Amino acid sequence: MFSLNFNDDEDLFVQLYEFIKAEIISGRFSKDMMLPSKRNLADHLGISVNTVMNAYDNLIDEGYIYSKERVGYFVSPVENILNIKTKNINREISRENNYKYNFDLNKNSDFAFPNTNFKKVLNEALFEQKELNERDDKGLYSLRSSIKNYLKSARNVDVSEEAIIISSGMEYLFQILFYILPEDTIFGLENPGYREIKNLLEMNEKNYIYQDIDESGIVIKNKDITSLLITPSHQFPTGNIMPIGRRIELLNYVQKTGGYIIEDDYDSEFKYYGRPIPALKSLDGPDRVIYISNFSKSISPTLRVSFMVLPKNLLEKYESIKPFYNCPVPNIIQISISKFIDEGYFEKHLNRMRRIYDDKRKFALSFFEGDKLYRVIDKKAGLHFILEIKADLSEKEIENAMADRGIFIRGLANYYEGEIKYKYPRMIIGYGNMSERELEEAIEIFKEIINSLSDK
Amino acid sequence: MFSLNFNDDEDLFVQLYEFIKAEIISGRFSKDMMLPSKRNLADHLGISVNTVMNAYDNLIDEGYIYSKERVGYFVSPVENILNIKTKNINREISRENNYKYNFDLNKNSDFAFPNTNFKKVLNEALFEQKELNERDDKGLYSLRSSIKNYLKSARNVDVSEEAIIISSGMEYLFQILFYILPEDTIFGLENPGYREIKNLLEMNEKNYIYQDIDESGIVIKNKDITSLLITPSHQFPTGNIMPIGRRIELLNYVQKTGGYIIEDDYDSEFKYYGRPIPALKSLDGPDRVIYISNFSKSISPTLRVSFMVLPKNLLEKYESIKPFYNCPVPNIIQISISKFIDEGYFEKHLNRMRRIYDDKRKFALSFFEGDKLYRVIDKKAGLHFILEIKADLSEKEIENAMADRGIFIRGLANYYEGEIKYKYPRMIIGYGNMSERELEEAIEIFKEIINSLSDK
Repeated sequence: MFSLNFNDDEDLFVQLYEFIKAEIISGRFSKDMMLPSKRNLADHLGISVNTVMNAYDNLIDEGYIYSKERVGYFVSPVENILNIKTKNINREISRENNYKYNFDLNKNSDFAFPNTNFKKVLNEALFEQKELNERDDKGLYSLRSSIKNYLKSARNVDVSEEAIIISSGMEYLFQILFYILPEDTIFGLENPGYREIKNLLEMNEKNYIYQDIDESGIVIKNKDITSLLITPSHQFPTGNIMPIGRRIELLNYVQKTGGYIIEDDYDSEFKYYGRPIPALKSLDGPDRVIYISNFSKSISPTLRVSFMVLPKNLLEKYESIKPFYNCPVPNIIQISISKFIDEGYFEKHLNRMRRIYDDKRKFALSFFEGDKLYRVIDKKAGLHFILEIKADLSEKEIENAMADRGIFIRGLANYYEGEIKYKYPRMIIGYGNMSERELEEAIEIFKEIINSLSDK
Repeated sequence: MFSLNFNDDEDLFVQLYEFIKAEIISGRFSKDMMLPSKRNLADHLGISVNTVMNAYDNLIDEGYIYSKERVGYFVSPVENILNIKTKNINREISRENNYKYNFDLNKNSDFAFPNTNFKKVLNEALFEQKELNERDDKGLYSLRSSIKNYLKSARNVDVSEEAIIISSGMEYLFQILFYILPEDTIFGLENPGYREIKNLLEMNEKNYIYQDIDESGIVIKNKDITSLLITPSHQFPTGNIMPIGRRIELLNYVQKTGGYIIEDDYDSEFKYYGRPIPALKSLDGPDRVIYISNFSKSISPTLRVSFMVLPKNLLEKYESIKPFYNCPVPNIIQISISKFIDEGYFEKHLNRMRRIYDDKRKFALSFFEGDKLYRVIDKKAGLHFILEIKADLSEKEIENAMADRGIFIRGLANYYEGEIKYKYPRMIIGYGNMSERELEEAIEIFKEIINSLSDK
């Protein structure tokens, strides 16, 4: 019954355990069958009683056998064992198309990550033994405090640490918002605007209505809308800045509906002349603005850190659900970002990046200057501009032709819900992701392709 | 009109900008009022035309004024400005009760964080320029690959990298599961068991039914249940190990319902004798087990990294929603953990922690040995044991008396839905969070309190 050859690769008790287990699974050792006593089996196999005991103990733990005191060991009643086997899911090769050049406006430079200084604060963070072990669902107090100071000085937003909640990407902040916003919220969304948000809202069975923007931003025509999701500092993707008049109009509107404005301040750090545009939140007397921002563009998208400022009444609601959504950002990263801000690296990094991006912007723009085929719609901010091509081409046609040559580029229509209202194709030139050399190569290929397409 | 005293603290153009803005907000400069020309104002204030231009440009950007070409600058029609002011939410002091001693079973040691080695891999990670900039919604391939190898060797779970999804805490994994599990899922939950999950399910309007456990684990009495959330390796909080018979029974059950078993393998690393209990997933021939685990107990809860393995058909569903939930874990942390595993630090750390926790466990147990007032329910695994106190006391009474003396401790009843079925109070002794000295102090006070309570 126990014809077992031991090898040297594994502990004896494990080999015995595996053997008995296999016999039971195969059905060769049947239900309630009595196993040899430990001493008998040890003698039979020429191993120690201890080894047998170890194997039996493990089999008991896992329920393969059971023991009756002073009687012996028996095979457990394991009714019908299904097709027990380890299943190996085949690895599906789903490699993304690797573009050589990428005009995606959601990326920033590989070389932008502030390695040296971030390494410095990371190492400092490792010594913050106490903070490394703290837990706070809103995020560490130290980081909220750094963000508070940053918001005050850079965005003219004066809030308390208590009102700040740190999380991962925007979708995780919305996960919280979905629970604390009024149940009957109907979101007004900018058209054109972010597309991902639509899917997120639909997946969560939330109501939304797209509203066209004009030069000043969203225009509310459908009065069913109760809350707004807008990008006042730099409309995404057109780059328009919302003037004070429209800002106040919208604040008045949500005060009447009892709703909120969600202000997505996604790239306000990048304005290349004059003062930064103040956040709408800085005007928020009625306390109805939820301010959302992140460190994706200002430090790195791979840090996956965003944050929001809640109005007081939403904060109170948040306190009641807080325990179910722990802050997903590792402490070490929170401490590092806090130090990065407090020790002045953040400002230095932003200044450096502003210069780099401004240089790239000017460099990219220079290729289209004086060329009547192109009209640049440039708002002097952010990490992209819009390029109108005065030719009878469709954006899809251009996108496809570019993809064939290894260039990722999107037309503005991708950000529209419903019909587009402009004539000529408008392509989005995100320049943050490429070096000047890459930009030059990419734009030259781009122009070559446009020429050959319009010649046809 | 422009009685303005400049100071040295700020740029002149900013001071001018602020002055004009304040005049407009206050209503002193009224709608459509014409402003002086740049030259006139410059002369009047004794500053450069450039400075005035900068101020005007910013005011135009923000919509406070507008310009008519060849006519001049005018105050914008900003209808009724509401109570514009910066609102400062008072900081609410909500300091948690700071306990001196903590028997919480969800914490582990401050001194457990593997500082030196984690610092090493963190620094190495900073050089992985390419990976630092990669994006993968499931988590970085390198970390999934490390987890795959770990699961194979340590948990006997043989899956592909493609089936592994990395996220933050368990609640974020559930956020994904809620979208991909069948809509009519009715979850069967262990009683006693995790309490947080109940709230999460309710907030997401999911159906669930508590089922009592016996020595072998959950017993399904209500056949409406379609899917199960269980802790087979080490039932939470009783510590029971689910025997093979029950495992197969449950696998057969969900195969019939078309549902899934969510296996929470939360602390399987900590078993102090014999072989680790294999994961239920290792038996998953029918491919109906969702395996969930995390690095909270094995590295640090402050890393906030968990992961799951999806069965093939759920994986296909996941692929369709993937874009809306980006992996929330910073790349630098993912790379570090991957290196931590691959370079052998993880195993070393686990071995070290197993020894530390085993020592602590024995140390804590030694205080109750031979004392007839206490019965220890110890399953020789995990980071806690259950202590039954044979006295006519309620758990609440004990909790409160302990809290008064600075000790955080919970009774088992906190993990029960409905009536409890045992007579004497059962307290949970989580020993992972304290040093031996603290344990000694805490247990001595504990025993003192129990004595004085039972004397009354």
